[in-house]
Amino acid sequence: MTGFVSLVGAGPGDPSLLTRAAVQRLRRADLVLYDALVSPETLAIARRARRFSVGKRAGRPSMPQDTIHRLMIRAARRGVRVVRLKGGDPFVFGRGGEEALALRAAGVPFEVIPGISSAVAAPALSGIPVTHRGVTSAFTVVSGHARSSYEPVFDAIRPGTMTLIVMMGTGAQIDIASALLARGWPAATPAAIVYAASRDDSETWTGTLASLHRGDGPIDPTRPGTLVIGDVVKLHDVLAEQIESAEQVV
Amino acid sequence: MTGFVSLVGAGPGDPSLLTRAAVQRLRRADLVLYDALVSPETLAIARRARRFSVGKRAGRPSMPQDTIHRLMIRAARRGVRVVRLKGGDPFVFGRGGEEALALRAAGVPFEVIPGISSAVAAPALSGIPVTHRGVTSAFTVVSGHARSSYEPVFDAIRPGTMTLIVMMGTGAQIDIASALLARGWPAATPAAIVYAASRDDSETWTGTLASLHRGDGPIDPTRPGTLVIGDVVKLHDVLAEQIESAEQVV
Repeated sequence: MTGFVSLVGAGPGDPSLLTRAAVQRLRRADLVLYDALVSPETLAIARRARRFSVGKRAGRPSMPQDTIHRLMIRAARRGVRVVRLKGGDPFVFGRGGEEALALRAAGVPFEVIPGISSAVAAPALSGIPVTHRGVTSAFTVVSGHARSSYEPVFDAIRPGTMTLIVMMGTGAQIDIASALLARGWPAATPAAIVYAASRDDSETWTGTLASLHRGDGPIDPTRPGTLVIGDVVKLHDVLAEQIESAEQVV
Repeated sequence: MTGFVSLVGAGPGDPSLLTRAAVQRLRRADLVLYDALVSPETLAIARRARRFSVGKRAGRPSMPQDTIHRLMIRAARRGVRVVRLKGGDPFVFGRGGEEALALRAAGVPFEVIPGISSAVAAPALSGIPVTHRGVTSAFTVVSGHARSSYEPVFDAIRPGTMTLIVMMGTGAQIDIASALLARGWPAATPAAIVYAASRDDSETWTGTLASLHRGDGPIDPTRPGTLVIGDVVKLHDVLAEQIESAEQVV
């Protein structure tokens, strides 16, 4: 008898943005190991499962990655159906690759269920298309977690040539704007921060790289958020009101 | 009485990768305007709707964008619930931004339902994480539709610094590899083409930029596919077999 691990993307938070495959895996799961950004409504779908948080919580560090691997492998070997539930998509800065390699090394069968990544969905829900004809034909997604992750990427991109999406960068936005300005990005480049996309407390700030650098936007490292930098941000001003007013129609 | 337009992402094809919101919108739609890559199983969910293809078909061009706008607006003004259904995500090369602007200009209420984009999901389902600790902390997504769309982007990125994902580039892969090699990308850079991700006829080819350039991969402009270029492609060789064997367990 062998168990099974599903590496599942939970999307940005609203359970209506879960895939049908994710819902089905949650419903039949015996054990759910979930990250900090997974919403309570999403967890509630896993009715019959034991549920453990393995993510960061209020200042306390997350569980060591090795421990997460051991928990998954041990449970699967006991015949348990495990869902490893991650905010967004498992393979977009989710360390899903490391977990997949650990499962492979242990010979545990697993699958990957992609999720809606905030990289694209957070801007979209706020009326910002990451690509737009005549504005940009490419976008780059980078982690804002540490300077060592984003500075080499900023070094590698010619300023102002594409949409830039920085994930996990709330709280570091002044440093991020500073790093881009120092590399020649125009100060007038439109910029947005989309907080808590798809959730009830969602909020979008828009400005420019200059105003981001001045600290004009709300600075809160505890709130999940997505930074969007590039001319596509201008579309927010045209589209957001219409999208918000539509929520009453639905 | 006013209608409503939902710009809905249909994901990569497998209807289990639809979001719950997409399924709900399809079930209650009166009219579905769908693109070429939407699968029949997905369309079948819109039981009570009239359904019209507005995408490219076997050599014939797609409906002009203006005509799509007019169809949506006219139907919504008659009180019809319209789903504008796009492969993947509406805002990743889906012209969703143009359609949103047209609806805004006409005063038609609309919403955006993000979908699973093949940009991340096609590699993921084939065992390739687009980001991976120690390998890459960023990825760039670009359209392979025309040289004029991808060459300026290749010009703007320092060779070999991040994962590159080229969508709608099957058939043009020799030109794409040539453009990258000419800009200094190492010939040994791992490369993959993931065809028809999530569908029954899914297939993955892996090689290098050099072998892609030689024409070693299957060349078929009629099949949807995603090119992945970068060291993360090496993970496919380790993970794909385990993921495929898991399909029997599920």
